[in-house]
Amino acid sequence: MYPRLVNPTKTFGANLRRLRQLRGFSQEKLAELSDLHRTYVGAVERGERNIALVNICNLASALKCDTAELLQGLDFSRTGKLHGRTGR
Amino acid sequence: MYPRLVNPTKTFGANLRRLRQLRGFSQEKLAELSDLHRTYVGAVERGERNIALVNICNLASALKCDTAELLQGLDFSRTGKLHGRTGR
Repeated sequence: MYPRLVNPTKTFGANLRRLRQLRGFSQEKLAELSDLHRTYVGAVERGERNIALVNICNLASALKCDTAELLQGLDFSRTGKLHGRTGR
Repeated sequence: MYPRLVNPTKTFGANLRRLRQLRGFSQEKLAELSDLHRTYVGAVERGERNIALVNICNLASALKCDTAELLQGLDFSRTGKLHGRTGR
């Protein structure tokens, strides 16, 4: 098994919050645009939910961003060096 | 609500299969490296599962690829034009 990011949900949540704020959206607005519940969006931003692919795509559509932007920092680079948060 | 990809799981599955084959891995090998079950990997490749973030990261680690490569074709471009498979 290869080394893993300890906290991908936290990294994803931080990306989501940053991109949402960049668009000037409230959590309510983003929830409405992505057809998700506001409390769910909040939980994802706090890294409390292991969000699935379809909802990742829905959020990217609502934010008009690439899914890659939401997953920034979750990459295993070609050199084998792990990026993103690796501490507990 | 913004337009959505109809079949993100199919697109993801096709990417996964392509990258796995590029590495010369069998489904069994990839399953072992990513600590997932072989039948689960097969179902994801067929687009039958809405895979969640942590498992996406585990697969990217096992394949030593960027998560963005697994999500290729699932992007909503900055011009608002939808990429990827949009048909049923």
